[in-house]
This record gives sequence, C-alpha cells and structure tokens, in this order.
Amino acid sequence: MVQVNNEKAQFEALFDKLAADVLAEIESYHLPQDGIDYVKKMLYATVPGGKNNRGMTVPSALRDILKRDLTEQEWFRAATLGWCVELLQAFFLISDDIMDSSITRRGNPCWYRQEGIGMKAINDAFICEMAIYRLIKKHFRTEPYYLDILELFHEVTFQTELGQLMDLITAPEDEVDLAKFSIKKHAYIVEYKTAYYSFYLPVALAMRMGGVTSEKAYKQALDVLLPLGEYFQVQDDYLDCYGAPEVIGKIGTDIQDNKCGWLIVQAIDRASPAQRKILDECYGQKDSAKEAAVKKVYVELDLENVYRKYEEESHGRISALIEKVDESLLPREMFVTFMNRIYKRKL
Amino acid sequence: MVQVNNEKAQFEALFDKLAADVLAEIESYHLPQDGIDYVKKMLYATVPGGKNNRGMTVPSALRDILKRDLTEQEWFRAATLGWCVELLQAFFLISDDIMDSSITRRGNPCWYRQEGIGMKAINDAFICEMAIYRLIKKHFRTEPYYLDILELFHEVTFQTELGQLMDLITAPEDEVDLAKFSIKKHAYIVEYKTAYYSFYLPVALAMRMGGVTSEKAYKQALDVLLPLGEYFQVQDDYLDCYGAPEVIGKIGTDIQDNKCGWLIVQAIDRASPAQRKILDECYGQKDSAKEAAVKKVYVELDLENVYRKYEEESHGRISALIEKVDESLLPREMFVTFMNRIYKRKL
Repeated sequence: MVQVNNEKAQFEALFDKLAADVLAEIESYHLPQDGIDYVKKMLYATVPGGKNNRGMTVPSALRDILKRDLTEQEWFRAATLGWCVELLQAFFLISDDIMDSSITRRGNPCWYRQEGIGMKAINDAFICEMAIYRLIKKHFRTEPYYLDILELFHEVTFQTELGQLMDLITAPEDEVDLAKFSIKKHAYIVEYKTAYYSFYLPVALAMRMGGVTSEKAYKQALDVLLPLGEYFQVQDDYLDCYGAPEVIGKIGTDIQDNKCGWLIVQAIDRASPAQRKILDECYGQKDSAKEAAVKKVYVELDLENVYRKYEEESHGRISALIEKVDESLLPREMFVTFMNRIYKRKL
Repeated sequence: MVQVNNEKAQFEALFDKLAADVLAEIESYHLPQDGIDYVKKMLYATVPGGKNNRGMTVPSALRDILKRDLTEQEWFRAATLGWCVELLQAFFLISDDIMDSSITRRGNPCWYRQEGIGMKAINDAFICEMAIYRLIKKHFRTEPYYLDILELFHEVTFQTELGQLMDLITAPEDEVDLAKFSIKKHAYIVEYKTAYYSFYLPVALAMRMGGVTSEKAYKQALDVLLPLGEYFQVQDDYLDCYGAPEVIGKIGTDIQDNKCGWLIVQAIDRASPAQRKILDECYGQKDSAKEAAVKKVYVELDLENVYRKYEEESHGRISALIEKVDESLLPREMFVTFMNRIYKRKL
C-alpha cells in the first residue's frame, strides 16, 4: 500500500522507471547511441521538475473514487497515467515557449534556448507526446478501459490545441489590437487551453480506471472542473504580473507578449478613455517602460483588489457547484481536495 | 463502384468532405468564427496540393488485397485513411520546414513563411496530427480494426520522429562535421524518417481494412516496403541536387543545410583527400559559391552515374524481394504496382 504522506517522492521516483520504458522501446528500434542519449537528456530536462499537481491528481482522485487506499498496482497505474498527463504538459510547454518566444521556464532557460537545442525542440515536443501512447500501450493494453483513455488523450489534446490557436490569433505578438480582447474570449481560451488538460483530464483518467462509465458522471466532473480550471488560470495570469519570479520560477511576459490575460481584459472593462489610450499604446510592446505604464494603469484600477474579490466569488461559486454534486455518481470529496489545493496559491 | 481512371480526381474531391468533418467538430466546440476560418484556411493550404501518392496507395493496395474493385463504402473508407496519411505528412512537413529553415514547399512559400503565420505553424502542425484521430473516430469507431489503426498511427508517428531526431542531430545546421555521416547512418535516417510512414503505413492500413491479421503478413510487407522506401528517399536526395526546381516544386537546400543525404555519404565514401578537404570546408554553409564547389566534387566523382547504377541495382534487388513474397499471405501484384509507380520518377 502506498503511503499518502510519501506520495510526492514516490511519484517523482516513478519517472525513472517510465523514462526507462520509453528508452527501452527506442533501443529496440536500434536507434544509434547518440540518439538514445539525446532522448534521455531531453526527457529529464523537460518532463519532471514541475509541481506535478496534474499528474498526482490521478492517484489522488482514484483514491477518492474508490473510497479506500490504493494497492501497489493501482497506484502504479494511476501514477503512470499521471506521468502521461505530465508528458502531455511537456509537449505543450516546449512548443508554447517557442511560439511565445519565452525566455525561462521552471527557473531555467526554456528548452529551445538551451545549448545546442534550438528548433530541434519542436521534434522533442512530438517525442514527449508520442511517449504517452508508448507508455499507455505497454501498461494498459489489456485493460477494459484502454481505448477510452486513448480517446480521452486524443480529444483533450485537440481541445488544448484549439485553445492555443485562439490564444495565438487573438493576441498576435506583432499586431496589437485590444479590440480583439474580451472577457468572453478570455474565458474560451482558458477553458480550452488549460482547463481540459489540467483539470478534467487527470480526473477523467482516474474515473476510467475506477470503472466509472456513466456519461452523466463525466458531465458532472466537467461542470465542476472547467470553472475550477478557469479560476486556476486567472490565478496564473495574476501571478504572471504580481507573483514573485523567484517563487513562480519564471519572469512574467504577458504584457510584453500581448497576451489576452485576465488582468488586461478586466482593465479594458474598467479603463477611462485616458487609461484605455495608455493601454492601446503600451500593451504588447517589447519595452519595459511601456510595460511599467500598463502596470501603473493596473494599480490605478486597483486590479489587485478586483482579483481578491474574484477569488472570493469564485470560491463561493465553485463550492456551491461541489455542493450540488450527485454523490451517487461521484464523491464530493474529490472536488473538495482539488479546490483546497489551489485556493489562494502563491505558486 | 469507383472508376480507377478517375480516382485521383475523386480522391482530391474527398478532401472537401473530410475537412468539413473536422470543421464541424470544431464548430461543436463553439470555437469563435475567426478560429474556424483560420483552421479551414490552414488545412487547405497545408494538406492537399501534393502528389497524394501516399494517400492513394490505401485504396490501391486494398484493391490488390481484395483482388476486386471496391464498393463505394470501401473506397470511401480506404481513401479516408489515405487522407489521414496525408494529414500525418502535413504535420511532418509543416514542422520539418521550420526545423530546416526551408524556403519553399510545393512551389509556394513554406506555411510558416506565409503572411501572418510564423511560429503559429507549430500549433497548426499539431492540429493536422489530431485531425487524423478525429476522422478515424468519426468513421471507424465501430470497425473491428479501429484500435489496430490507432496503434499503427501512433507507432509510425513515433518511428518517424525518431528518424527526424537522428537527421537533426547527425546534421546540425550550425556545426558541420562530416565525420558524423556514414552510409549506415543515412540508411537508418531514411528508414525511420521516411519509409515507415510513406511506404509501410498506407499498405498496413489497407491490410487492416482488408482483414489481414497474420503478423507474418505485416513482416512480409515491411521486408519489401522498407527497402522500397529507402530507394524512394535516395531518389529524393538525388533530385534535391539534380532535379529541376520547376518540376519538383522546391529549391533543393540539402547541401547548404548540411543534410546527411545519399549524395554526400557516397561522395565521402569515394573522395580523394583533396576532394574531402573541399567537402569539409564547403558542405553545410549558407554560401552559394561553396555549394557550387560541393556540386563540382559530385561531378568529378560522377555521382550521376553512381546513382544510375544504384537505381538499377535497387530495382533488381527489390524485384527479387517481391518475387519471394508468399502469395498465401499477400498478393505480389500490390508490390509490383508500387514499384512501377516510383521507378525512375522525375518528381
């Protein structure tokens, strides 16, 4: 039986085994040694090292669904699916960092900016994505829910890519037009780009493992987890500007990158004509003085306080959704654990 | 019944229907209209417009396997899988062009170089890849071979990515080292980067559709199709240098891009010390005078003639492999059709 208090270390340790599985398959293809060494270095540089919240949600949710501790094998399988979610995340982060011209990630230079990598990182992202299907085939192909989890990964991957597309065309770096931004468009981008893969996917995987087949139960999970994911991303947008770089592990670039984030859509909604003029002139420019001018408008509009109120309101609204969960379908506890983990986070 | 003489036009026309399927799914996600318009434009710009040899191989091979004309529904399904192969190809070409800093593709600027696209092309490549799984789910989920074709796409995608990785690390653009090149490494790159997805995949899909389940039959197909794919890629490498740009639809960049192609590995194998010095100094440089110096060594070594001999030798060797095919497993005719289509091609 897996001790919950020790779970983070065990989850992290499992990565060695799963990376070895992927590398063993590559060796079976007789890939030359420099290729094997490269894939190993790439996997270790891009996949572990995050907070692993998404990945660790799978065993945690399975425990809530089964209402008991997990056997070794159950934990191993759930944690393996958890690492598959982390591989999906690595696939997105490696490529998003290129598309956004980001500088740092998890306190290090982004993978594509590391020595000798460059645009090879695009293919590295693909390898992370396909590693998911190598691991699922190896460990789940005899399970009754094998096809369900394949389809789940396909669907959520597609949804996330559509969210990324909307993010990219709503906020192109080279053509700032705040008229394209709106609270509604921001909500769409957040739901598709983040909430499906970060919130719904890990729980839905645990539900498949736990033998949940009722479509109503998956609808119920979506109804709580998508708003929770939106709340999480709003936190992320807020921390990009107001978080401490040494805590969040990256230097926020949303203002200079012309991102359609929560702060700017709130600012647009509240700005006086004079403030709007400043935002139009200064948002999305690679210029730290202009970035400071945007931040000054945020201060004038007291967005920190708007955020506090949003945080309280969201907590109340999502708690009410959890309250309404039909426990004959899914345990309320699962959602409570989730909510508590992210409420008022600083990281 | 589908008329074979009209098949290319029918295959091309089917793309409209399949693109509409993908767009309809995206509409069901309530993607804003500018997103739908973008995906439509992207799919039409990146997927059709090639020779469609890979895609059209699926119905052609199925006809050979069943030894009769196809019904409308069989043709529709086989051609749909053919377009899935073309979508996989679009995924690779869009991203390879970025990784290789290519300029033109099919006579047009590469997608990432088109107005207003840039690095968004990375996410566009992902959408092409996931469109495969949307189409397969829509049209094949009740078929007994549904899971087999999902696994086939996963495996071949992974193999192709490993080939691309070896290509990229063997021949980095910024660090020319011909000592890394060899005939053996070239053969590995070609097999993984091209032969699996271009030659094995379309035939294996037709075999799954045709109800072939014997693992021996798939091994047999691999044994012929991988050498055939190698031959095809050697032609490609040759045409990159010796083909007419107005015929092949692109300006060859292998020499300047430091590609580990067939011509350079043959040249290394035959060069005198003086010629090797020229190759070491001039290969992989963004400099047309140096490119010309490399081409001059190719002429001195009479690589055109070396290629003619290779072509004859390959034809003989592959014909002998086809001769040995066990007809109780697979029809020899299928491989003959394939061979004839590519032998001595100019495009």
